[in-house]
Amino acid sequence: MQALERLRSRMAELSDLAAIGMLSGWDQLVMMPAAGAPARAQQLGTLARLTHERATSAEIGAWLEEIDAAGDAAALAALDRDVVRLARRDWERARRVPDELAVERARAEADGQESWQLARANDDFASFVPALERNVELARAYGECLAEPGESRYEGLLGDFDFGLRTQELQSVFGALARELPPLAEEARVRSPRRTLEVPVAAQEAAVSGTLRRLGVEETSWRVDVSAHPFTAWVGRGDMRLTTRYSDGEVEALLSSLHEYGHALYERQVDPALDRTNLGSGTSMSMHESQSKLWENHVARSRAFAEVLSSELGVGGFAVSAADLHATLVGVEPSLIRVSADPLTYPLHIVVRFELELALIDGDLAVADLPGAWREQMQRLLGVEVPSDALGVLQDVHWGAGAFGYFPSYALGCLIAAQLWEAMEAEIGPREQDLRRGELEPVQRWLGERVHRFGRRLDTTALVVQATGRELEIEPFLRYVAPLAGR
Amino acid sequence: MQALERLRSRMAELSDLAAIGMLSGWDQLVMMPAAGAPARAQQLGTLARLTHERATSAEIGAWLEEIDAAGDAAALAALDRDVVRLARRDWERARRVPDELAVERARAEADGQESWQLARANDDFASFVPALERNVELARAYGECLAEPGESRYEGLLGDFDFGLRTQELQSVFGALARELPPLAEEARVRSPRRTLEVPVAAQEAAVSGTLRRLGVEETSWRVDVSAHPFTAWVGRGDMRLTTRYSDGEVEALLSSLHEYGHALYERQVDPALDRTNLGSGTSMSMHESQSKLWENHVARSRAFAEVLSSELGVGGFAVSAADLHATLVGVEPSLIRVSADPLTYPLHIVVRFELELALIDGDLAVADLPGAWREQMQRLLGVEVPSDALGVLQDVHWGAGAFGYFPSYALGCLIAAQLWEAMEAEIGPREQDLRRGELEPVQRWLGERVHRFGRRLDTTALVVQATGRELEIEPFLRYVAPLAGR
Repeated sequence: MQALERLRSRMAELSDLAAIGMLSGWDQLVMMPAAGAPARAQQLGTLARLTHERATSAEIGAWLEEIDAAGDAAALAALDRDVVRLARRDWERARRVPDELAVERARAEADGQESWQLARANDDFASFVPALERNVELARAYGECLAEPGESRYEGLLGDFDFGLRTQELQSVFGALARELPPLAEEARVRSPRRTLEVPVAAQEAAVSGTLRRLGVEETSWRVDVSAHPFTAWVGRGDMRLTTRYSDGEVEALLSSLHEYGHALYERQVDPALDRTNLGSGTSMSMHESQSKLWENHVARSRAFAEVLSSELGVGGFAVSAADLHATLVGVEPSLIRVSADPLTYPLHIVVRFELELALIDGDLAVADLPGAWREQMQRLLGVEVPSDALGVLQDVHWGAGAFGYFPSYALGCLIAAQLWEAMEAEIGPREQDLRRGELEPVQRWLGERVHRFGRRLDTTALVVQATGRELEIEPFLRYVAPLAGR
Repeated sequence: MQALERLRSRMAELSDLAAIGMLSGWDQLVMMPAAGAPARAQQLGTLARLTHERATSAEIGAWLEEIDAAGDAAALAALDRDVVRLARRDWERARRVPDELAVERARAEADGQESWQLARANDDFASFVPALERNVELARAYGECLAEPGESRYEGLLGDFDFGLRTQELQSVFGALARELPPLAEEARVRSPRRTLEVPVAAQEAAVSGTLRRLGVEETSWRVDVSAHPFTAWVGRGDMRLTTRYSDGEVEALLSSLHEYGHALYERQVDPALDRTNLGSGTSMSMHESQSKLWENHVARSRAFAEVLSSELGVGGFAVSAADLHATLVGVEPSLIRVSADPLTYPLHIVVRFELELALIDGDLAVADLPGAWREQMQRLLGVEVPSDALGVLQDVHWGAGAFGYFPSYALGCLIAAQLWEAMEAEIGPREQDLRRGELEPVQRWLGERVHRFGRRLDTTALVVQATGRELEIEPFLRYVAPLAGR
C-alpha cells in the first residue's frame, strides 16, 4: 500500500525534524555561546516553519483518504493502524488552525514573553495586561478551532498537552485536592516542618553523579550537563541528555536530577519498534510529569532511598544521616513559589492556576482582575499572603508564552505517579528493601512494561487504566502525603 | 518584486538549514554519546534530503525566470544581483544531476567509506578495488553532468569545491611545484631537520588557550573543544566553534588550533549584510584552506610568533626557547603521510594525488594500477619508499568517500596564503614586530577587508586578484619556504 508507505516516511521525517529541534534547543541552553542567540532564533524559526508545513501539507490528507478508500484500514497491522489513527488526529487538529491565527499566536507569544519578563522584573502587572489580554484572546480563538463537537474551548487547548482530558474531570479531581490538602498541609507544617541543609556544591555534584550512575546513566548513551533551568532532551535512541543545576547550600539538585531522569527514562523505554513513527514518544504532558514525579517523590523523597543519597553525599565528603536528609527533602511549608513548593502543597499551586486560567478562557475573569483573584486563591488554598505580583501571578512564564491548559499536567503528574507506585507495589511487592540498596531495576522494568513502551499508542486515561487497572484517582496521592501530616 | 523576495526567503531558509546541519555535525563529533550514532545518521540524512529538495525545487527556476522576464535584473541592487547570479548557478548545477545518480552516489560513497576503513585497517587494497571503481565510475558520470560546455569531467567535479578552476591551470601550477620543491626539500632536510619536542598535554592546553585568547577568541562568541580530528563549525554569527586535539609529547595542537582559527575567522568576517543569503560564507575550499594555512604557516610557524607561543608554553609550565620551538615547528623531512607533512613538502603530497585522480577520471589509469602509480609518484616527488598501501594510497578517506577534485584545494591554500601574506606586507608593512608581540589585529583587519567580507560574491580567482592585484602564482610560496633550504 503505497499511501501508507508515504505516510510512514513523512512521519519518519517529522520525527527526525523533532529530534533536530530538540538538539538545537538543548545546545542553545547548554553549549551555545551567548552571541549565537539571534542566529539560533532564526534557525529554530525556520525549522518550526518547515516542520509545520510538512505536518499540515495536503498530501497527508490525500494519503489518509487513499488508505481509507482502500477500505482495509482494519486489515492493517496493529502498529500501522495506530500510525494512521494518530496521523489523522494530528493532521486534522493542525489543519483546523488558520495560518493567520498560527502566525498571530507565534507573534503574540513572543511579545508576551518579553512583556512578562519586564513586568516581573519591575513587579508591574499593569504593563503586562495588554500582552496577556492578547494572548488570552488568541488562545480562546485557538481553543475554539481545536475543540471537538461538544467540547469547550478550554478542552480544545488541553488537547495540545493531554489529549482526551475533560474539564469536568479536572474540576472534580482538583476540587477534591482543594478540599483535602489544606487541612493536611496545616498538620504537616508542624509534624514535618521545612528544614535546610547546607550542602556544598562539590558534594551535591558527587551525589548526583553517583546516584545517576546507580540508575544506569552511563556515558555511552547519556549526557548530564548544567543549565540555568533543569530540563531533559531526547535526541535519539541512545542519546538522552539531562541537565541539572547546583546552588550552594541547597539540596534541590538531588531532587531535580531524579526528576529529569524520570522524563528521560520514559522516552528511553518507548518500544524501539516505534522509532521514527508518530508514536515514538511520551503520550502526554501529564504522563511525562508522572514519570518525573515518580522518581522525584517516590524514589528521591522516600525514607529508604535517603540511605543511598546520604551515602553518595558521604562519598562527596558531606556527612548527613539518612533520617536528617529525608526530613529535609520532604519538609512541608505552604509558600509563594510553585517551583520550590514541597511535595504536599505543590498540587495546590496548580489548582490556583487551573481555576484562574479556566475562568480566563471561559470569559468569567478579566485579565485586569487576575492579581486580586490570585491573592484570594493563594489565601484560600495555601493560607499565604501574596506580598507582590512578582512573587504572585507573575512568577510563571506560561501565560505570557500563551500556554493555557498546560498547568494541570503538573498536578496530574503527582497523582498519576502515586497511583502507579501503588499499583506497582501491589504487583511486585514493596520496594523499600530495594530502594534502601539503590536497586531500581525492577521499578525501571515495571514502568517500561506497563507505561513506557506504549509511546503514544495509548492516551493518558487509557494508559493509566492499562497500568493500574483503574481510572485516575486522588487517593493514592493522599495516602502518599498522609504520613507527612502524621496520619 | 515578489519573485526576488521569495528567492531571498528560500535562500535564508537554506542558510538556516546549513547552519543546523553544521551544528548537528559538530555535536556528533564533539558532544554526542556514542550510542546516538544511528539516530543521528538518520537525522542528518533527513536534513540533507530536505535541503536538497528545497534547493532544487522547480519554484526556484520559476522565480528566476520571473526575475529575468521583468528584464530589470540590471536594475537590481548589486547585492541582489549577486544573490540571483549565485542562486541561478547553484540551482542549475544541482538540477543537472539526475535524482538516481545522486542517490547512487550517496550509497556508493557510504559503501566506499566503509570498505576503505576495512581495507586500511587490513592493509588490503584489493578488497577496496570494487568500491573505489564504483566511486570513480559515478564520479565520471557526475562530472559529465556538471561540466560546462567545453569543460572536462574533472573540471565539472572541481566546480563543487572551487568554481571556475581550470585543469590546465592546476597542471601548470602543480607542474612547477613538482619541479621546484624536490631540490629545495633535499637541502631543507639538512638545513632545517625535523625535530621533536616533548611538550606535556597540560602545557599545550595552556598555550593553545592563551594564544587563542590573544587573537580574540572569547567565550561569548566562540567555543574551543576537543575532538578526534580538529575541525571548525560556524553555527551562526557569534557562534564559532573550533576543535583541537592534544597528543602527549607533540606540538601539533599549536599549529592545528591556529589552522582552525583561520577557517573560523574567515566565516566570522564575512559581511553581516550577507547573513542568511546564499553569499554569506567562504567562497571555495581553496580560499578556506588559504585562510587556515595563512595562520598555520605564516603566523604559527613564523620565527617572530614563536616568541608568543614559547611564552604561552611557559605559562603552562613548559620552558622552551623561541628559537628551539620555531625550529621544531618548521623542521623538514620528506615523509609518507600527508596530514603530518612539513610546510615545504606538504604540497608535493597533493601533487601526487592530483595527478592520480585526474588520470582516474580521465580514464588514463585503472583503479587496480593505483598502488603502483602511487609508489612511483612518492618516489619521484618525495624520494620515499612506500612500505605498505596503508601508509600509502589508503591513507586518506577522500576517494573512498567519492570526493574527487577536492585535494587540489589543500595545495592551492598554501600558495594563496603565501601570496596574500606578501601582498599584505607590501601594503601595511612587515608584520614581524607585531607578530613578536602577538598583535594580530592589523592582519585580521586586512584579511577582513580584502578577503573575508566578500563571502561568495567573488570566486577564487577573482578574489585572489582583488586581494593581491595578481593572478595566482607560486613564487610567494617558494619565497616562503626558501629560507628552510638556506636560500
